[in-house]
Amino acid sequence: MSITLYELVGSDETRPFSPHCWKVRMALELKGLSYECEPVRFTEIPTVADGSARTLPVLRDGSRLIVDSFKIAEHLEEAYPERPTLFGDGAGRAYARFIEKWVLMELHPLITRIAVREIHDLLDLPDQNYFRRTREMRLGATLEDVTRSRDEARPKFASALQPVRAVLDEQPFLGGAEPRFVDFILFGALQWVRLVSTFPVLAKDDVVDIWFERCLDLYGSLGRSYPACEG
Amino acid sequence: MSITLYELVGSDETRPFSPHCWKVRMALELKGLSYECEPVRFTEIPTVADGSARTLPVLRDGSRLIVDSFKIAEHLEEAYPERPTLFGDGAGRAYARFIEKWVLMELHPLITRIAVREIHDLLDLPDQNYFRRTREMRLGATLEDVTRSRDEARPKFASALQPVRAVLDEQPFLGGAEPRFVDFILFGALQWVRLVSTFPVLAKDDVVDIWFERCLDLYGSLGRSYPACEG
Repeated sequence: MSITLYELVGSDETRPFSPHCWKVRMALELKGLSYECEPVRFTEIPTVADGSARTLPVLRDGSRLIVDSFKIAEHLEEAYPERPTLFGDGAGRAYARFIEKWVLMELHPLITRIAVREIHDLLDLPDQNYFRRTREMRLGATLEDVTRSRDEARPKFASALQPVRAVLDEQPFLGGAEPRFVDFILFGALQWVRLVSTFPVLAKDDVVDIWFERCLDLYGSLGRSYPACEG
Repeated sequence: MSITLYELVGSDETRPFSPHCWKVRMALELKGLSYECEPVRFTEIPTVADGSARTLPVLRDGSRLIVDSFKIAEHLEEAYPERPTLFGDGAGRAYARFIEKWVLMELHPLITRIAVREIHDLLDLPDQNYFRRTREMRLGATLEDVTRSRDEARPKFASALQPVRAVLDEQPFLGGAEPRFVDFILFGALQWVRLVSTFPVLAKDDVVDIWFERCLDLYGSLGRSYPACEG
């Protein structure tokens, strides 16, 4: 059965940048599954598959269609139990769920503040219009106003990562000796910043940066094969 | 071999209130081990066992002496592997480590702001002097000044718990279908507030409160057998 991942791109369709799509990419790699990627722009989301999805990623696995990165990970775990595990036991799944919510709450707002204007500039014109309208409504401010104070986001970003350091001081991956889906959740956020922004969020000697580099090396350096944003 | 838990008390030595000691109590219960509790006041810590401990809890297990609640949990897991697990697999241990740091960073400062003056009042006079001196130095403010704006801590407390709700919306315990050490870490913090303060930190319909009540029922309602603070 063939697997297709529909993932978000900007004007350059060879550079998928969505954190949620990256989580699924890495999950497919961990499971060792073959898959194809289909680039989709923001304004093309209604044309994906049966048209029911409002967000990306969408995964088509044979006749099944799954929306939402966490649901996709759960599907892969259930459908391919003989392959390496994404969660481990039940506590491992809850761990991933907690980290997903924590990253969304603590890190994504900071990344938005840092990079929302740069993301806008990477999009095609119709997507730029859509993106500006929806994001400015959500943020209650212009993209330019949001990013004006982005220097303040850096120390907050560094401080928010303290619980991650407590884990990475003791083991190579958040999931243990080997990466698991919980790693890909944080990786997705950092790979997103790396691909869309020139703003440095991590110090080079930060154990989180060392872990991130380790993740970029996984699966034949898949993450690293997409060069960092050069502005 | 006999197990003794040295745990922190105030002037009423029948009411241990330390969050870290409660984590260990619950861990000993989950493992189904017999143990004795030895009440210790702040200023008596240097008299515990060989005098090397600077903090409580301290666990004596036969000839071994272990300081620090997480290290104690790891010892119990290693020494009693045939009993129910505190962590599950490696990811489960990392989950507990993350939550430990997260609770210390996000919740303990708020609980201090809410309850530090009430904790002071529960102590014997020599402990009150010690507690006020060390805490005011650490906080850079008088206990009275710290608690003056404690109403502001309540919405922050409710908001900080969002990632916990994401997990508890889907399963009865943070650890899964059954409680694990990760549950006891958050339980310790909430039991601490319950025992030292009359300040309500959770709404009754909050899934976190429902989970907390569930934890109070565990092990023959051990947690509930210590009545809530009445001021």
